[in-house]
Amino acid sequence: MAFDLLIENSKGLVQVRDSTPTFLSGSEMGNLPILPNAYVAVKDGLIVDYGRQEDAPSEATQKVDASGRFVLPSFVDSHTHLVFAASREEEFVMKIKGVSYEEIAAAGGGILNSAKKLQSISEQELFDRSMPRAIEIIQSGTGAVEIKSGYGLTVKDEIKMLRVARKIGAETGLTVKTTFLGAHAVPREMTKPNYLRLILEEMIPAVAEEKLADYIDVFCEEGFFSRDETLSIVEQGKKFGMKPRIHANQLSRSGGVQVGVAAHALSVDHLENIGDEEIELLKGTQVMPTALPFAAFFLGLPFPPVRKMLNAGLPIAIASDYNPGSSPSGSMPLMFSLACIKMKMTPEEAFNAATINTASCLELLGSHGSITKGKKANLIITKPAPSFAYLPYRLGYDWIDQIFLNGKRINYT
Amino acid sequence: MAFDLLIENSKGLVQVRDSTPTFLSGSEMGNLPILPNAYVAVKDGLIVDYGRQEDAPSEATQKVDASGRFVLPSFVDSHTHLVFAASREEEFVMKIKGVSYEEIAAAGGGILNSAKKLQSISEQELFDRSMPRAIEIIQSGTGAVEIKSGYGLTVKDEIKMLRVARKIGAETGLTVKTTFLGAHAVPREMTKPNYLRLILEEMIPAVAEEKLADYIDVFCEEGFFSRDETLSIVEQGKKFGMKPRIHANQLSRSGGVQVGVAAHALSVDHLENIGDEEIELLKGTQVMPTALPFAAFFLGLPFPPVRKMLNAGLPIAIASDYNPGSSPSGSMPLMFSLACIKMKMTPEEAFNAATINTASCLELLGSHGSITKGKKANLIITKPAPSFAYLPYRLGYDWIDQIFLNGKRINYT
Repeated sequence: MAFDLLIENSKGLVQVRDSTPTFLSGSEMGNLPILPNAYVAVKDGLIVDYGRQEDAPSEATQKVDASGRFVLPSFVDSHTHLVFAASREEEFVMKIKGVSYEEIAAAGGGILNSAKKLQSISEQELFDRSMPRAIEIIQSGTGAVEIKSGYGLTVKDEIKMLRVARKIGAETGLTVKTTFLGAHAVPREMTKPNYLRLILEEMIPAVAEEKLADYIDVFCEEGFFSRDETLSIVEQGKKFGMKPRIHANQLSRSGGVQVGVAAHALSVDHLENIGDEEIELLKGTQVMPTALPFAAFFLGLPFPPVRKMLNAGLPIAIASDYNPGSSPSGSMPLMFSLACIKMKMTPEEAFNAATINTASCLELLGSHGSITKGKKANLIITKPAPSFAYLPYRLGYDWIDQIFLNGKRINYT
Repeated sequence: MAFDLLIENSKGLVQVRDSTPTFLSGSEMGNLPILPNAYVAVKDGLIVDYGRQEDAPSEATQKVDASGRFVLPSFVDSHTHLVFAASREEEFVMKIKGVSYEEIAAAGGGILNSAKKLQSISEQELFDRSMPRAIEIIQSGTGAVEIKSGYGLTVKDEIKMLRVARKIGAETGLTVKTTFLGAHAVPREMTKPNYLRLILEEMIPAVAEEKLADYIDVFCEEGFFSRDETLSIVEQGKKFGMKPRIHANQLSRSGGVQVGVAAHALSVDHLENIGDEEIELLKGTQVMPTALPFAAFFLGLPFPPVRKMLNAGLPIAIASDYNPGSSPSGSMPLMFSLACIKMKMTPEEAFNAATINTASCLELLGSHGSITKGKKANLIITKPAPSFAYLPYRLGYDWIDQIFLNGKRINYT
């Protein structure tokens, strides 16, 4: 076979698996296969071969020497809000000065602040402002990403956000999955019952009509949407072909995990406030518990009790939660480091959480998350590194040297 | 005047000051002068002019357009151990798995691990391994840096480290200040009294003979060097022309601050365990309290009570502590973000802490730390940014676009 690309002499191919039938749970998460001194070959955008360097093919259109470097599959980021109108560093400064959430909200801050800014700009302008963030996450090693709506809060603005998210997928090498999150906050000018009706009767059908959302999500939290409201919204979404994922247990034991399990959600995300009851409930389900370490860090919340969850045999995914209020970074290397330093995941566990398990809960495990024949050639070549553990240990150092998406080298500079 | 370099149309020149007579303390630290819509001009490696864009000169050998971008003085990093032989991510993984400090030390880890590796390689090899770290910190915006010895622990190896540190200053655009830290740990094969004698009677004179150290430092900590031992070492250093700086109060209330004040140290660094008594003692002195936020973060220690110290009218500096065991990053943008997010410093306070105040305690305030006529043209041009606060808010995003050291654009790629 004539290969398009041959990456050879790598110090190790990380996350090499013959097949990836499902996500990894509990003690399995500590197992990260690394094939030392190896090559990987690409054709038509797919990984078609890999193996020990001594068995490497000699011919390829493009050859890349990866001596001293690791080759990784791209990260899969299963939770972001990266389509937004503007950063919110002014609220960051208010928080530093001790201004409370409530006061920030009263001063026009929070999700409603992002909604106001987003409603005031055109779809094209929103796309133009969001694309640099898509490029930014590509440069930090993400190959597939979930993007939520939820700063629109009107039918037309939610649709605007989701169109922009789809367009980012069409115009970059990123694989994009979209999630309708109309139930992110209640607009100031509406009562909650009226907004719920708008979501159920207008937004969901309109989003479905244009096939704009793969998933449906609700911010299940005190002061936002209750357990019952969450369930009614996601059940309506399911009728229109959108599978649920839930913002659960960030600020309180909100019942979000219970809804997630009841509704067979693909994931329950945040989990800063999860108790033994929720952990028990998640056992044996297909619901992916997802930690968002930078959000916990940035807000000064406790981190999810990941070791306890792993000991209970649960799977864990980690994602960026990239958004302008509580997690202003889409860097999966940062999440990888935080998972190790602060949540005490081993480098192997954290990398599995950010590849196999995020790919699984985005239903992308057939094409992403590992170096496997037939999967997309979404690959990262690191800078020289003495060991795999060196990567998360070096927080603040850009250890990525080269990025390939669909077999093509990315160069945005 | 014919300028060598003109950076024009900047959104703002940050830290512009006509003069910088001394460090900033208490409420002064909240004052960060930013000149909007401005230019800065360079000749012979120095800042020679700046002002409003409408008054910009028209002629220069090189012109750089900084529209939409901020121009900052380079960071000054007043505490690093960046000359070392090898990373120690294996200990990072042991810590994640819950292995204690004592067990890691018993397994050959810690400072003595670094010493063993460093003793086994040549001066040239040590230089070759350390230079990439110097380049790395230049790329992350550092213009002046302090580098300590302390992984040698023999006369010849301490000298080897300090020579390498001096050579880094000679072969890069970095301004390097060196610190002799023989009293970093007691070598396994020596008694403490014998090692103290070696430091006092052999190391200090030998280091002074070659003029290799500007400063002297001691790890004043339980299990390392006591208050009295610290004082005797720094007093001996002073006799040989090395001014003191102290590793103080990292793991316990070690008395390090008391020694620092008694010995008129330039700085007391760490301060994770500082009480009201030490804060009182520091008032009115010239000793710079220095926080090392990544070390506290990486080890899971409490952060120094910076707000309390600022309220008491003290100055604060922040530095990286770049070292392979407890702070494997030399990124001052990371320190800047951590100071804001975790120590609740405002962006203005944190930037002053990482420029003016670190320059002051390295005795570089005449040449570094601000955009001031006559100072070195060590400048950072940011990527487009909506506000100054955007920079620390964007942890994990490389907001640096261009770097100039001594008026020359740096490009290492």
